Amino acid sequence: MQITLPDGKQLDLPQGATALDVARQISERLAGDAIAATANGELTDLMTPLPEGAQVSLITKKNPGDAAAVFRHSLGHVMSQAVGEFYAAKGYSADQLKRGVGPAIENGWYQDFDLPEPLSEDDLPEIERLMRDIIGRKLDFSRREVSKAEATEFFAHDPYKAELIRDLPEDEVVTLYMQGDYTDLCRGPHFPTTGRLPTAFKLMSTSGAYWRGNENNPILQRIYGVAFATQKELDEYLHLLEEAKRRDHRRLGKELDLFFTSDVIGPGLPIWLPSGATIRRELERFIVDVELKNGYQHVYSPALAKSELYKISGHWDHYQEDMFPIMHLDQEELVLRPMNCPHHIQIYAHKPHSYRELPLKIAELGTMYRYEQSGQLTGLSRVRSMTLNDAHIFCRPDQIQEEFKAVVRMIQEVYEVLGFKDYSYRLSLRDPQDTEKYYQDDQMWDTAEAQLREALSDLGVDYYESPGDAAFYGPKLDVQVRSALGKDETISTAQLDFLLPQKFDLEYVAEDGSRQRPVMIHRGVISTMERMTAFLIENTAGNFPFWLAPRQVMIIPIADRHNAYAEELRAELVAAGLRAEVDTSSDRMNAKVRDAELKKIPVMLIVGDKEQEARAVSVRERTPEGHQERKGVAFSDLKSELVTRYQSRQ
Amino acid sequence: MQITLPDGKQLDLPQGATALDVARQISERLAGDAIAATANGELTDLMTPLPEGAQVSLITKKNPGDAAAVFRHSLGHVMSQAVGEFYAAKGYSADQLKRGVGPAIENGWYQDFDLPEPLSEDDLPEIERLMRDIIGRKLDFSRREVSKAEATEFFAHDPYKAELIRDLPEDEVVTLYMQGDYTDLCRGPHFPTTGRLPTAFKLMSTSGAYWRGNENNPILQRIYGVAFATQKELDEYLHLLEEAKRRDHRRLGKELDLFFTSDVIGPGLPIWLPSGATIRRELERFIVDVELKNGYQHVYSPALAKSELYKISGHWDHYQEDMFPIMHLDQEELVLRPMNCPHHIQIYAHKPHSYRELPLKIAELGTMYRYEQSGQLTGLSRVRSMTLNDAHIFCRPDQIQEEFKAVVRMIQEVYEVLGFKDYSYRLSLRDPQDTEKYYQDDQMWDTAEAQLREALSDLGVDYYESPGDAAFYGPKLDVQVRSALGKDETISTAQLDFLLPQKFDLEYVAEDGSRQRPVMIHRGVISTMERMTAFLIENTAGNFPFWLAPRQVMIIPIADRHNAYAEELRAELVAAGLRAEVDTSSDRMNAKVRDAELKKIPVMLIVGDKEQEARAVSVRERTPEGHQERKGVAFSDLKSELVTRYQSRQ
Repeated sequence: MQITLPDGKQLDLPQGATALDVARQISERLAGDAIAATANGELTDLMTPLPEGAQVSLITKKNPGDAAAVFRHSLGHVMSQAVGEFYAAKGYSADQLKRGVGPAIENGWYQDFDLPEPLSEDDLPEIERLMRDIIGRKLDFSRREVSKAEATEFFAHDPYKAELIRDLPEDEVVTLYMQGDYTDLCRGPHFPTTGRLPTAFKLMSTSGAYWRGNENNPILQRIYGVAFATQKELDEYLHLLEEAKRRDHRRLGKELDLFFTSDVIGPGLPIWLPSGATIRRELERFIVDVELKNGYQHVYSPALAKSELYKISGHWDHYQEDMFPIMHLDQEELVLRPMNCPHHIQIYAHKPHSYRELPLKIAELGTMYRYEQSGQLTGLSRVRSMTLNDAHIFCRPDQIQEEFKAVVRMIQEVYEVLGFKDYSYRLSLRDPQDTEKYYQDDQMWDTAEAQLREALSDLGVDYYESPGDAAFYGPKLDVQVRSALGKDETISTAQLDFLLPQKFDLEYVAEDGSRQRPVMIHRGVISTMERMTAFLIENTAGNFPFWLAPRQVMIIPIADRHNAYAEELRAELVAAGLRAEVDTSSDRMNAKVRDAELKKIPVMLIVGDKEQEARAVSVRERTPEGHQERKGVAFSDLKSELVTRYQSRQ
Repeated sequence: MQITLPDGKQLDLPQGATALDVARQISERLAGDAIAATANGELTDLMTPLPEGAQVSLITKKNPGDAAAVFRHSLGHVMSQAVGEFYAAKGYSADQLKRGVGPAIENGWYQDFDLPEPLSEDDLPEIERLMRDIIGRKLDFSRREVSKAEATEFFAHDPYKAELIRDLPEDEVVTLYMQGDYTDLCRGPHFPTTGRLPTAFKLMSTSGAYWRGNENNPILQRIYGVAFATQKELDEYLHLLEEAKRRDHRRLGKELDLFFTSDVIGPGLPIWLPSGATIRRELERFIVDVELKNGYQHVYSPALAKSELYKISGHWDHYQEDMFPIMHLDQEELVLRPMNCPHHIQIYAHKPHSYRELPLKIAELGTMYRYEQSGQLTGLSRVRSMTLNDAHIFCRPDQIQEEFKAVVRMIQEVYEVLGFKDYSYRLSLRDPQDTEKYYQDDQMWDTAEAQLREALSDLGVDYYESPGDAAFYGPKLDVQVRSALGKDETISTAQLDFLLPQKFDLEYVAEDGSRQRPVMIHRGVISTMERMTAFLIENTAGNFPFWLAPRQVMIIPIADRHNAYAEELRAELVAAGLRAEVDTSSDRMNAKVRDAELKKIPVMLIVGDKEQEARAVSVRERTPEGHQERKGVAFSDLKSELVTRYQSRQ
């Protein structure tokens, strides 16, 4: 048979030849370096027969491609062997240990076991040690094709494997993979030898998992591992994991008394405690102020409406399962709103409009309710009640481009204040081939998409296009902010909508007196208060900038005799609108400083005899690098400095 | 028989004597002045036989007592006669006009008619003229007792009267009242003669009314009249009515684009348009700022909870019919909250408290939902969704007095800013005799009531006590503000509650380490945003103070060439956080000024050549007396003046 190499070169090989045979035909050195291969773009290993006429590409350390998925899977087998040896050392026979599935997953793998006695997390280092030992033994992986009957016989002692084999089609060729004395039912691919597996791995945790994910089945014990090609990558990954834990908004939310949920109130309905509520209030006032200055008109509309409204809007047909149940009243049926747009459309529609009045920008901190399943709910980021920084721009078709630019400029203005520097623009367009998914009006789409592209290039921003990701009703722009954990989150969005204005028969009177249909732009800048707060908590690890900090200033009297002076300063700062407290505890000064740091209070004012005499303070401030100190600052100067900082949202 | 006069004097009179006989026995002059009387405290007239041994008091112009109810009723008969003459003049026979009921009501009377042809409001002046004519004829009212059979015969032509008579008990003595040729079925009492009826009356309107209020019956035409003893009183009443109409918050809400309701959203769910939302936002920021400075901790809690929460609080048992229906989810049942207290209690309860942390003052702009019947809903004042300026103070029993004082002081601080000067304090106490209505703990009540009294007298405020008006769970203070229409509205309230802390088993650790029960104070200062806004609209007639005005500044360029300068000033004012617009219409200056006045914009800046050259403005401001003008004010000075005014909420 013939195979083709990436450079187009063709090789003649006997039937049943493997990627290792290909490597050997090129050079013995390559055969030694190769760790896996792709055949026709699919991962395979060095011991699997290649299909006739395949395009073959070899994977080496230098050219690793998707090797990680392979070595993670092979490490799973090594772990499975090590667990066998761990229990053998305890005196159990091999038949007493049974195995569920064990796939490679993102960053690592897992393997399910039915163990003769449970494993504790304390046992993991010993299993890791055994794994490293097996790697040191440089055991070759080998592959064997067997019949279903042979496989059944081989795994007769293991009901899980037996069940998996039983479910295979009768004529299926079953493959087994072996290293040393360990054999597993597996489709592969695998590394050629344990000797070439990376040692940059770590067993992370164990947990219970139902066999085949079905809660009527027995619970198996699952062990998770992670692995990378290099120790550096593993270290980075573990560091990021630590960071994620340290920054977890649920953990910080509890530590800093930001929010909680109550069993008797209900899941997914967080209660914002005073500190969390302060952050939210500051965010709300900030975005409302920015929007007012940018010509938005803020409204308040009720968080519920007759179900009829959602029948007209189409939410009833397409979104009902995410909505709360209907409330049947004597004369009407009401339902909590899942989105604010239909309400804002009613505001537009309640009186006639002339072309001169457009664009009309209706904004609201709109509370909405979505029926998420209890299991999906988490902290502030997945909730059932949320308040969106929402706006709907009603404009003429010829205003789309200008309005889009204005939205992007405002997003930039807001991100500047929030300190978001690393973000990207994704322009989601229709797939012109997909006549199912998209509202059919080619000319409308072409014009709209061209206008958005032009708007973005006028603004000189980098963006990438994502065809097929537009909404049914029009193209959209998403702005994705990279968090301190390196994850991209869509924070802002602006979506063109040609459809809702049609469903609600919206109109304006054009210059020529004719009735025309306005276009809607759905637009969110800082997302929901819940999600933005969760994002900010994780992004700042609770070290909020001064203007957002729930507790801004802690005044620390060195001795009790300075308490009165401290209290005087506090009262002045509070009267100036700042959030200030005095630590009158009997702790020593250093303990008070440490405590204020734990509470992540950005500014400490330390007052002793000297400060009191000079009506001054010593300032200890948090900086990105650590902290900064200034001694003997006149209090009046400091106060104006802090007020300016607060009012300019720094 | 004998009767007794108010001074205790007794008179001997023949059986069947009337109040007129009493008056005559005293003096002929009094007989001439008397217009009605009371017998045993009940109103009667001069021609009705007095009961044996009655306490009789004569009513004269100088000592009118309840005379108004009598002359209003008599004027109803006069109107009924006049309507008869009106239709007679049109050629209808008396039998073609039939009559329903015609009672005296507050300020006047009404009478229902089944007319041969409908009456229009334009006919009312002619009927008034006929009434004055009948009064001029000085017709005596007379009274006749007849049997049911006689009455039936007399009113044979009138099915309404016939029906009323049919429904009377068989042996009832039926009374007829007559003046001139007019006779009506009536219990009285009436004036002795039309000649003594006041002429300070007015027919107000006509409307349809179902016979006996049943919608299956025919619709009769009802005519309303009002009457007072003097023209001055009538004028005052009509003026107040005009004022009420002019100030009606629903009318102004529409005229000034403050809010609307939508059929497709639902009744009682007002949508706040940008101008109305501005007032609400300013009020919200104001009260939150005041509360923060006063040591309140603001939170956000969800507007719904598991029904369980309200079962514990007792709302489920006592308040369910005012609550929205339950929403049944897969795993829980949720219900919109009718009050915020249970949520705030959960906040208190979510962690342990020491006596040192108290008082804890939890505040929220809490949105609540109440199921009012559709027929009850009106504008912003009776709604189904409302946002309350709510707070709950959790304190130790020994702190009640101080906390109460602090609440009253804050109410005074807030009223100062809102310009409320005419208000009164009502202290509602338990009725110690009523062991049913009040939570039983005499010592608790005695202590609490004494503390509140002491707090109020410490503050030096006038208050009145209202025994029996306390809530079930404790005494309360209501603050009632007199509106521009002279109506008292309860705006603020502070209620002591000993019961909810018990139901939720709330605790704090006392200084001696024992577990103690805190007391709650439910407290609202500016009521719901909906009710306060309705109140302010009516109170200011839409002329909001500068800081609350939805549209604060209108810049009026004298000619088109001043538009650019005007726009420059506008941008500067908006950047400073003010709400400013430019009137670039082609209207003349005076028309622009008039238009801004109609829109109730408090400050106009007029700019022409001179102003532009000097970077100045001419200012035209609304004042309580009318308006004030200042020419050639430097714009920078004016700007800081306005910013100061805005920031200090004036």
